[in-house]
Amino acid sequence: MQDHLSQTFSALADPTRRAILARLSKGETSVSELAEPFLKEMSLPAVTKHLKVLEKAGLVTKSREAQWRPCKLNGTPLKEASDWMDFYRQFWEESFDRLDEYLKTVTAKKKAKGKSHGRKK
Amino acid sequence: MQDHLSQTFSALADPTRRAILARLSKGETSVSELAEPFLKEMSLPAVTKHLKVLEKAGLVTKSREAQWRPCKLNGTPLKEASDWMDFYRQFWEESFDRLDEYLKTVTAKKKAKGKSHGRKK
Repeated sequence: MQDHLSQTFSALADPTRRAILARLSKGETSVSELAEPFLKEMSLPAVTKHLKVLEKAGLVTKSREAQWRPCKLNGTPLKEASDWMDFYRQFWEESFDRLDEYLKTVTAKKKAKGKSHGRKK
Repeated sequence: MQDHLSQTFSALADPTRRAILARLSKGETSVSELAEPFLKEMSLPAVTKHLKVLEKAGLVTKSREAQWRPCKLNGTPLKEASDWMDFYRQFWEESFDRLDEYLKTVTAKKKAKGKSHGRKK
């Protein structure tokens, strides 16, 4: 059995599943309504299979309030994933700092070059 | 071919690969040194296979500075993943707000019950 965090990341590792979550971020919807935009590219069973992966990971729940049991986005598993990622924030901020530093050096060099060209005239 | 974001999430969907990243967060290391703690549970080819998944996702790079080509963590792909997740922050914060609300109600009910028991004495 997969651990929670692996299950969440695994569920997110697919553009269709992320598109389903994006749709559900706008509000609850029925399975058929949810599937509709994907049916040009895939079959209904293929969409429901993706939906089941999301349900198993706890990212989508089916409401028991209404008889048509609408699908709902549940963000709770994303919290754990986001907390995990936060630890690594320093590593991408470092990379962007280095990129920033590099761009500054390049710009400074270009400016210096421009000035020396100017002197030649 | 998988899109970037799917490749990142897919690479993170494994506890061994996340443990490799955790080790690399402490600093660069050689493949053999990196593999060492995992060899009780799996073979060296199994570890290098995990490492290759991380490299393919751009999460690990092999430095060209030294002859022993140390492995290094690269956080840049995590930025995209974290940005994607940030959009959904409202959904887990909402859940925790609801939980908080529920716990307040339960505590208030317990207190009220305690008081009424007190009056009976």
